[in-house]
Amino acid sequence: MLSEFLSTALLLAAVIGSGIMAERLSGGNAGIALLANTLATVGALYILIEVFGPVSGAHMNPAVSAAMSLRGELAWSMLPTYIAAQLLGAACGAWLTHAMFDLPILQLSAKVRTGQGQWIAEAVATAGLLLVVLRAPPARVSAMVAAYIGAAYWFTASTSFANPAAAFGRMLSDSFAGIAPASVPGFVIAQFAGAGIGLALHKSLGRTEPKPLTEMP
Amino acid sequence: MLSEFLSTALLLAAVIGSGIMAERLSGGNAGIALLANTLATVGALYILIEVFGPVSGAHMNPAVSAAMSLRGELAWSMLPTYIAAQLLGAACGAWLTHAMFDLPILQLSAKVRTGQGQWIAEAVATAGLLLVVLRAPPARVSAMVAAYIGAAYWFTASTSFANPAAAFGRMLSDSFAGIAPASVPGFVIAQFAGAGIGLALHKSLGRTEPKPLTEMP
Amino acid sequence: MLSEFLSTALLLAAVIGSGIMAERLSGGNAGIALLANTLATVGALYILIEVFGPVSGAHMNPAVSAAMSLRGELAWSMLPTYIAAQLLGAACGAWLTHAMFDLPILQLSAKVRTGQGQWIAEAVATAGLLLVVLRAPPARVSAMVAAYIGAAYWFTASTSFANPAAAFGRMLSDSFAGIAPASVPGFVIAQFAGAGIGLALHKSLGRTEPKPLTEMP
Amino acid sequence: MLSEFLSTALLLAAVIGSGIMAERLSGGNAGIALLANTLATVGALYILIEVFGPVSGAHMNPAVSAAMSLRGELAWSMLPTYIAAQLLGAACGAWLTHAMFDLPILQLSAKVRTGQGQWIAEAVATAGLLLVVLRAPPARVSAMVAAYIGAAYWFTASTSFANPAAAFGRMLSDSFAGIAPASVPGFVIAQFAGAGIGLALHKSLGRTEPKPLTEMP
Repeated sequence: MLSEFLSTALLLAAVIGSGIMAERLSGGNAGIALLANTLATVGALYILIEVFGPVSGAHMNPAVSAAMSLRGELAWSMLPTYIAAQLLGAACGAWLTHAMFDLPILQLSAKVRTGQGQWIAEAVATAGLLLVVLRAPPARVSAMVAAYIGAAYWFTASTSFANPAAAFGRMLSDSFAGIAPASVPGFVIAQFAGAGIGLALHKSLGRTEPKPLTEMP
Repeated sequence: MLSEFLSTALLLAAVIGSGIMAERLSGGNAGIALLANTLATVGALYILIEVFGPVSGAHMNPAVSAAMSLRGELAWSMLPTYIAAQLLGAACGAWLTHAMFDLPILQLSAKVRTGQGQWIAEAVATAGLLLVVLRAPPARVSAMVAAYIGAAYWFTASTSFANPAAAFGRMLSDSFAGIAPASVPGFVIAQFAGAGIGLALHKSLGRTEPKPLTEMP
Repeated sequence: MLSEFLSTALLLAAVIGSGIMAERLSGGNAGIALLANTLATVGALYILIEVFGPVSGAHMNPAVSAAMSLRGELAWSMLPTYIAAQLLGAACGAWLTHAMFDLPILQLSAKVRTGQGQWIAEAVATAGLLLVVLRAPPARVSAMVAAYIGAAYWFTASTSFANPAAAFGRMLSDSFAGIAPASVPGFVIAQFAGAGIGLALHKSLGRTEPKPLTEMP
Repeated sequence: MLSEFLSTALLLAAVIGSGIMAERLSGGNAGIALLANTLATVGALYILIEVFGPVSGAHMNPAVSAAMSLRGELAWSMLPTYIAAQLLGAACGAWLTHAMFDLPILQLSAKVRTGQGQWIAEAVATAGLLLVVLRAPPARVSAMVAAYIGAAYWFTASTSFANPAAAFGRMLSDSFAGIAPASVPGFVIAQFAGAGIGLALHKSLGRTEPKPLTEMP
């Protein structure tokens, strides 16, 4: 699907590109760099879900697509196409970014991200993402996914990839947002485990009866 | 309630986790660290109230739950369950965060937060929170609570805990967001006093007749 | 009016308090300090207009109240009461902030803000604020005023007071957000001139026929 | 058109003014400066599209106006007037900013921005902008354009001018946001090429059938 390909490519361009720009400009202060990386990702997610959501759902994420298939909202027969479009888009997004920043197109990240804490963090991040995606009111899903990932960049120890396609694309960039190939399998396993936890929590919370926090007196 | 437990756990994970990450990355600049801590808290509050609000109200805060009982919007018989779920959630949120960041699970904060200024600040912060919760249009309560706490992190001298459950959970983490056990009682007393002031101000302002700031000419 | 008093007091507490906190934490980097000051002001304006707007309009600003009287939307007989409540609120907001931060309650700022550039900036800032207030769709006035002031803190050379009551309250605080008493008259004159320009531009732009930027194809 | 003139002037004032302020305050850290520049631009775009959109569409951008003419949404006979108003507004915005900051009014930037990466970046930035403008739901176009440009400031190597009028106005300011005259033609060509790509992608994605990411179960 053109839509899943384009949206995932632009997402990865936003994540990797803002990481490169942020690292160049922040004078060695990783806090400033991650702040900029966060804001760019939040803005990009918001508009990508608005623009591409009506076409293909704007999953941009194999774990989300798989969950949708499990729930009967995406035909199983479509799942491989979705995932292939997402992975291809992620790679092209990384390469496009390198072209913009005058860097070698083909790279592999050397940034090791591993260990029990990182894996717990990815599981937490993906479980939370699934909860948000499954429970957001349709009109707010773009703002909520964006706000969630913005928060999760900071509160999870792994800066919240929460997305196997993102892990794949970031593996292809030896920059701020990168992840070493050897670290990817652990992340992906943790992400799918987290997606399962998210689905289970969603079921445990039950159907929602609209009940606002409070009414005017 | 699973919902109050989960939402409070995730709130504390967001507050404490982003504090740890921010302190690690900000190169000793506490301003950058609190900026990051603020943005993560704002994003988390927005999505937690949206996701868990329809299930349990997403109070995540014993002072809010008590105010709701006082106003007849939460059965008094439910209040102890709510508060227990919130306190347990706060503790588990702190512990989950430590697991993510490869830190010892059980900790007690050594950060003393005390004095008249801090207590006035907590009373102001909680009074303002109650005003926001009680007067927000239902569709905007998530954005408004998030925006309010984001501002209050900076304008109150205490960085606005405004929440006894948050004080309890942050007591269990010896990190950026922590509070020493000896400082907690003063904070909690100030918070309940502030909640009372907020309720009184809400009554003084009277019923609201919708009257926008201005209409198109 | 209690509502104008409270909202202006909280606005000044937010502006001055976040300035003090930001200056303390930012390690001498005024850019970080103003970023934090901006975010706190944006969040505070958004919730104050939502909370107090339905009660009193949440002007918090004598220039806005005077413009409303000129347009027949606020009775001239109410104007002195509004302005008195705003000025008293501004002073109390400054003093409450000093109490929170364990500072002497009564202060006068020593920060000189003067010169032609500053006055042009205040006129531009206030003209823009009036345009936003007069042309915002009612449901978006809170978000738009907040976004406008957030931008204007940075693009006007004066960091956009755009509010005589704010100038008065900030005169009473010798901190990041302060303004020396001798600089206040120039600011206030520029603000009322800017308000007049804003009103004139609003009339020149004519009635609005709703015409969105573009429709779906 | 007064509306296109004013909106473009204020946009350039926001972009250039916040750049000057940010550079002055950020202590040499370009990351902090661009963060502030980004936030001011985001806030300004949001309110400018809301305020001026109902009057003239608030294009503020010759590439957008040309695309609208191509699509039959703006009469070809109006296009030269729109572009003239935008260019004149851009120049006046730069000059107003210099007056506010006590700088020489007439300047030319010396900041060279050139090379293949920069041009690819401008094409990507403008293509994305067109996609956002053409596919945004009318009620969200202001928030989406603002969020998009905020992200694109960071993820494109050129900090995303994406607007020939902005390039023209920024050429007239030897400050943080400036661009050397010799670099402008390359940017403008890349921008119009990107606008064409954006239009083509918009057509390829087809008509949108509203299909939210997910419904409540």
